[in-house]
Amino acid sequence: MQRVHLPLMFHTDTIVALATPGGAGAIAVVRLSGPEAVPIVEKIFYPIRPSKRLRDQPSHTIHLGHLSDGGGILDQVLVSLFRAPHSYTGEDVVEISCHGSSYIQQQLLQWLIRKEGRLARTGEFTLRAFLNGKLDLSQAEAVADLIASESEAAHQVAMKQLRGGISNRIKKLRKELIDFASLIELELDFAEEDVTFANRSNLYQLLDILEENLRRLIDSFALGNAVKHGIPVAIVGATNVGKSTLLNILLSEERAIVSEIAGTTRDAIEGEMVLHGIRFRFVDTAGIRSTEDRIESIGIQKTFEKMEQAQVILYLFDAVTFDEQKIHAELVELQAQYPDKKIFIIVNKSDLSQVNFQGDPPANFLTISAKQARGIENLKNALVALIDRKTLQGQNVVLIQSRHYEALQKALEAVLCVRQGMGQNLSVDLVAVEIRQALHHLGEITGEVTTDDLLGNIFSHFCIGK
Amino acid sequence: MQRVHLPLMFHTDTIVALATPGGAGAIAVVRLSGPEAVPIVEKIFYPIRPSKRLRDQPSHTIHLGHLSDGGGILDQVLVSLFRAPHSYTGEDVVEISCHGSSYIQQQLLQWLIRKEGRLARTGEFTLRAFLNGKLDLSQAEAVADLIASESEAAHQVAMKQLRGGISNRIKKLRKELIDFASLIELELDFAEEDVTFANRSNLYQLLDILEENLRRLIDSFALGNAVKHGIPVAIVGATNVGKSTLLNILLSEERAIVSEIAGTTRDAIEGEMVLHGIRFRFVDTAGIRSTEDRIESIGIQKTFEKMEQAQVILYLFDAVTFDEQKIHAELVELQAQYPDKKIFIIVNKSDLSQVNFQGDPPANFLTISAKQARGIENLKNALVALIDRKTLQGQNVVLIQSRHYEALQKALEAVLCVRQGMGQNLSVDLVAVEIRQALHHLGEITGEVTTDDLLGNIFSHFCIGK
Repeated sequence: MQRVHLPLMFHTDTIVALATPGGAGAIAVVRLSGPEAVPIVEKIFYPIRPSKRLRDQPSHTIHLGHLSDGGGILDQVLVSLFRAPHSYTGEDVVEISCHGSSYIQQQLLQWLIRKEGRLARTGEFTLRAFLNGKLDLSQAEAVADLIASESEAAHQVAMKQLRGGISNRIKKLRKELIDFASLIELELDFAEEDVTFANRSNLYQLLDILEENLRRLIDSFALGNAVKHGIPVAIVGATNVGKSTLLNILLSEERAIVSEIAGTTRDAIEGEMVLHGIRFRFVDTAGIRSTEDRIESIGIQKTFEKMEQAQVILYLFDAVTFDEQKIHAELVELQAQYPDKKIFIIVNKSDLSQVNFQGDPPANFLTISAKQARGIENLKNALVALIDRKTLQGQNVVLIQSRHYEALQKALEAVLCVRQGMGQNLSVDLVAVEIRQALHHLGEITGEVTTDDLLGNIFSHFCIGK
Repeated sequence: MQRVHLPLMFHTDTIVALATPGGAGAIAVVRLSGPEAVPIVEKIFYPIRPSKRLRDQPSHTIHLGHLSDGGGILDQVLVSLFRAPHSYTGEDVVEISCHGSSYIQQQLLQWLIRKEGRLARTGEFTLRAFLNGKLDLSQAEAVADLIASESEAAHQVAMKQLRGGISNRIKKLRKELIDFASLIELELDFAEEDVTFANRSNLYQLLDILEENLRRLIDSFALGNAVKHGIPVAIVGATNVGKSTLLNILLSEERAIVSEIAGTTRDAIEGEMVLHGIRFRFVDTAGIRSTEDRIESIGIQKTFEKMEQAQVILYLFDAVTFDEQKIHAELVELQAQYPDKKIFIIVNKSDLSQVNFQGDPPANFLTISAKQARGIENLKNALVALIDRKTLQGQNVVLIQSRHYEALQKALEAVLCVRQGMGQNLSVDLVAVEIRQALHHLGEITGEVTTDDLLGNIFSHFCIGK
């Protein structure tokens, strides 16, 4: 089994980074971690009471003073002290809370680097936290997801992972596999005596449980992925069918709620809205020039690509030219082309013309008036209903990392090989190889098994300062 | 004399704001100030050790715990505690350092507001610091300037002001005026007895000192303003004379230095560079279509406007078509049109043609090759030499607030009236009115005299969270 090789540098140098977002603000926080964190800061920090030297202060205390490099005073700051191992990284950590001008931030970083701090790489603080055993690997990954979360659901799944949700599930699976392995190994030891200690039906039952749990986790990735990245929705239809009006009414209504508190809303991203904690990303598809055009004649590659990327398609029709049979035919064709996508037929402009169905309107047909904001609530409910909210809530674990998804797929393959091997009465030692393989892949998720490459890859997706 | 009317609300409610820049980052800091800061945070903060209640903790300590509103966990956070009066505002202050996702920031603010916090207005934390006597008014104003500082010089003048540079100077002037006033009042008291206690020549000497000091401060505003807002430089000349090449070489060289440290540089603003700590803002003036055109025939109002806004004009000529007499004539005309502006004649493309002057080239003539980066250092030195660096350094006070400039102008006017009144042997009580006027205007700078309107106007220019 591979064990992480700890590069020596992680233990001897002190890293420095801006921890708050770039740009000017009331305050900014510059963070140091490593054995020299306190000595480096002492070189430029002068406490208001000179007798209170930073090195003599207890952990989790805050100190007022000013920054100076021998020349003028750069700023008056608050310095927070965290002593190893009681810090985020497990090392000595100092946080300098300065006035948030870009000049001060930049100057302070330069000073700290001149005093032998090293600018941290992306995710290096969290990497150190992992290497020092403060977090396991899936928890460390959750930190990046937590910071990137923009919706309630994305935040929930990341928070669950940070609090050990996935780790506990994986550890349980590993324990079950190890129990299984010991039963098999027992059989292996006594193989020559032709004694079967391990009850075969018990073994198969254990495999069933393992398989079911692995599959459930793997299946949750589709939901986790949608929650993490938002659900892409393509709005398609002829140019005058009211696509933009629909998009605007959807977005403007939701934006008003989001921007309730000034100063916290990020610049609006074109076509995103959060409904009941789930982010929907609307993909604009201009291109259908005439309502007479058939889908296959759209002719614009871009529109096809965007529909390809979408998980949901809202196909708009004009109520004035409503032709139920024609629409049904198009729907059948569209669904055949995109079998995995959820397609809604939206009959717009119900204010201009009554829409009559031959029987009850099909469930995925919605009549709206975008202009008069009628039927919009129904449409939102239909979108929200696509999400398995029960799985998101409660104690359920939802995969959000494709890395975990891949590792679980490989673990499942190994478990299936175990079952196959047992069925074919393969020698027990060959079966044991597959079990070890499954254990390896599960260990990769929590970081019990890891490599430098894997770590480099994971932490390169972090921001600097975390 | 007006005294500030303290609105009651400043003392009973607790304000809340995001203190770090908006957007996602490793961490974000949400700040509370007011009597309910600790109780409000206690409603949603659960310390890791439940026995360690926030209310029982000493000032300047940090506490790990998680945020919950009864439902799930929003985040694991560090809470910093500052007890009145040992805080920025002088009130109880709590800072919550959370993971920097926009979702967490927004949610946390919403929770705090639901728990009876009030979203702070711009500058309200600093306003409270002023009202509670932690800072005087000119120091409070310096906080906003400090945060906005993007160059070393702008930072220096703001830092000096924050550390009381202007306040001390103004207090000294006020003291001198009060001394003067008491001498005059003495004369007033004994006026009927026709006894002149105040030695007239001493009084005039005091007035001289006051006037000189006021004028020196008023004069420093031109420099302070240039330093704060950057010095606008217009580059003018014919289209093929190499304006863009010059701009690019100036900017790219300096940008490389500024962006040494990744993540701290703001998005580049078109045409800005910092030379020796001074910001120069280059103003692009396209429009002179032919080198044969005379200045007065440029004909494009925009170019005139931009030259009007500039403090420095770089007028480019082509070395190939160099005609010393013609350029001299144009310079004379340009200088007559813009008598207050510093004009440099830049003869570009020295790589293509030798530039021969009849005598020594005039000091404001510079020969360069923008393409080959020759003569650029000379040009930069010439720009830097425009700044009175001696005044910026050392103990000199430099005005950067137009509000202070106006108040000092009014104080000077009053002092001049005092002198005039004394010269005309006006009754001493009339002179005393002017002295009080001067005292009033000086008091406005430090906030010893103030009104709600004035405060509202000053603090509305702050960012939220400061």
